[in-house]
Amino acid sequence: MAESIPEKKLSESVGVVSPVYLDFQEPLPLASGQVLENYTLAIETYGTLNADASNAVLVCHALNASHHVAGVSASDPNDIGWWDNMVGPGKPVDTNVFFVIGINNLGSCFGSSGPASINPQTGRPWGAAFPVLTVEDWVRAQARVADHFGIKRFAAVMGGSLGGMQALSWAIQCPERVAHCVVIASTCSLSAQNIAFNEVARRAIITDPEFYGGDYYAHNTVPKRGLSVARMIGHITYLSDDDMAEKFGRAQRNPTEDGRFRYGYDVEFEVESYLRYQGEKFSGYFDANTYLLITRALDYFDPARRHGGDLSKALANVQADFLTVSFTTDWRFPPERSRELVRALLKNQSKVTYAEIDAPHGHDAFLLTDPRYHAVVRAYYERIVRALDLEVTA
Amino acid sequence: MAESIPEKKLSESVGVVSPVYLDFQEPLPLASGQVLENYTLAIETYGTLNADASNAVLVCHALNASHHVAGVSASDPNDIGWWDNMVGPGKPVDTNVFFVIGINNLGSCFGSSGPASINPQTGRPWGAAFPVLTVEDWVRAQARVADHFGIKRFAAVMGGSLGGMQALSWAIQCPERVAHCVVIASTCSLSAQNIAFNEVARRAIITDPEFYGGDYYAHNTVPKRGLSVARMIGHITYLSDDDMAEKFGRAQRNPTEDGRFRYGYDVEFEVESYLRYQGEKFSGYFDANTYLLITRALDYFDPARRHGGDLSKALANVQADFLTVSFTTDWRFPPERSRELVRALLKNQSKVTYAEIDAPHGHDAFLLTDPRYHAVVRAYYERIVRALDLEVTA
Repeated sequence: MAESIPEKKLSESVGVVSPVYLDFQEPLPLASGQVLENYTLAIETYGTLNADASNAVLVCHALNASHHVAGVSASDPNDIGWWDNMVGPGKPVDTNVFFVIGINNLGSCFGSSGPASINPQTGRPWGAAFPVLTVEDWVRAQARVADHFGIKRFAAVMGGSLGGMQALSWAIQCPERVAHCVVIASTCSLSAQNIAFNEVARRAIITDPEFYGGDYYAHNTVPKRGLSVARMIGHITYLSDDDMAEKFGRAQRNPTEDGRFRYGYDVEFEVESYLRYQGEKFSGYFDANTYLLITRALDYFDPARRHGGDLSKALANVQADFLTVSFTTDWRFPPERSRELVRALLKNQSKVTYAEIDAPHGHDAFLLTDPRYHAVVRAYYERIVRALDLEVTA
Repeated sequence: MAESIPEKKLSESVGVVSPVYLDFQEPLPLASGQVLENYTLAIETYGTLNADASNAVLVCHALNASHHVAGVSASDPNDIGWWDNMVGPGKPVDTNVFFVIGINNLGSCFGSSGPASINPQTGRPWGAAFPVLTVEDWVRAQARVADHFGIKRFAAVMGGSLGGMQALSWAIQCPERVAHCVVIASTCSLSAQNIAFNEVARRAIITDPEFYGGDYYAHNTVPKRGLSVARMIGHITYLSDDDMAEKFGRAQRNPTEDGRFRYGYDVEFEVESYLRYQGEKFSGYFDANTYLLITRALDYFDPARRHGGDLSKALANVQADFLTVSFTTDWRFPPERSRELVRALLKNQSKVTYAEIDAPHGHDAFLLTDPRYHAVVRAYYERIVRALDLEVTA
């Protein structure tokens, strides 16, 4: 299948990749008090692990992404990794030096155990019985992947948005296992408005009659309408107001000859068409229970909570150096939320590099190719190479 | 019923009020090309119309409000008018001087003809057959109320949010009938992001299986789930991020004794409880088809459109003086949108007063009692009193 990928594209990327599925049989105790008896994680790796396992980078994904971080999927030549512009040979996270691991979060729907997986105790999909997870649970589940590879300490744990929260949690939960922590377009806890958007999205899903209390698998159906609305809400929060104005403005979709409106509730504006398409597409491949689970994990994440709201206390044991990046037009996790993290780290005399990138693309900017943004990440990884005395492995 | 209202409260307000229903039998041609053969408008009035009908103020309402602008509803002592802090004896819009009219928009669900009304041609509720309306249609429908009272020219036409768009449209469509135009927390056209939020809300309603293509009345049901989600989305956009943080923060709802989370999808945070309550309440009294109709009218409003996007050309014939007010934390219709209006008016050498109020409460600020905001409106109306040489009528 990969024959259809242009030679140049392949040579600049990690190439054709396939996931590996790791089964963990040791029970995983969860924040909720429940225990997951065993679980599977889907992973991909890029680059070569060096002899002392000191060049490993863990990349954590956001809500709808997966372990497929870079390269071209062996099963689908159109499926390019979600951070392929960031991870690859010669790219900011250079796989000629680093061994990069992508892990599909526990509870997600791209190969790791989740609500749509078979519950071994019943032989049917978990559905509503799948436990609610937290960011901390994800980190504990992922630590076993590090063990599997014999990685005692990651050169870096890195992520954007929710992935950034995971990277942060790694630095807090496993301080001795994270040399550098890269937190991009993220936050140390959701705001009331963030939770509010998540809650509306969840209500759209849960009140969809085809949700069946989370056990829609048994009814051979999917709460597509709710999931589609949830995705549409999400999409609005990923883009900046200006970016939407630039992309769509008030342009009419399929304008009538005389420019008159159609005066109805079908698609009339370009932005409506775009959102409907995004909602429709998403509801065709994403699991509704996973949407609930991941947004809830986001809501719950708040490492300062058990320290009376004092973030610097929550970060007291951190050993990692930090790179924190925010984007000026990101109104989902605005720069101020990143500055909170930076201030708390500085208070602890942790080493932190902070870049606030003036970019027009809202929250989505962390996925896009912005020269200044990529230069910052590249420079930081070059510093890691020097600090850890890493060599080219490829 | 009004006995339960404290004496002081009543003396400071316009008192107990009842709506009047005006029937218009002359066909109303609509922007869509359709014609409404006849229609009813629910109205309330406060104060006394003077002999030359020069002291009339029309107050236009926003999405979910009505003709009940001020005072205490005769049928429900808890039903205080939505702008009671603004309109009344001694208030910024002083009913000792002005004769104030509130009109429920055509297509709404509080007594004026709308989708839930009986279609005289079928004897059943209009439902999906009720025509799509525009802001311009509303103005044409309302002009007949002015005719009914013998009002040739309003001392002021005034509104907040959607109501401000109506006021602006009045000044454009009937330039000789508007002496002053008061546009608060409004815009001259929705942005792509504004349309996007409306569209998601509409999709939530339309895809609710109980919507039945708009003819849910015939099925004795209501698309409550969709309407509730729509309202929750709206509510998020009415409040500022900071205001939500202040009001709700990350506070747990009914905290557990040990402060642990419940790890589920029921209400866990205060903000969730608030939004669910708002959605639930709204879906109990508001008509889903009206929600579609009004949000669509908002989408369509764009007076500059037929002038190649040149707003000053659209405003070329305006005769009214303007007061325009915006609020710094209103991210639904931010100050920049008001400044567009001000710039276009100034380009035409129209008289315009502009106040940008530093207020923390987002879009909702236009409904709240802010001393600086109310002082600006009061001063402007005192200027109208002098300009039109009005006298106390009460």
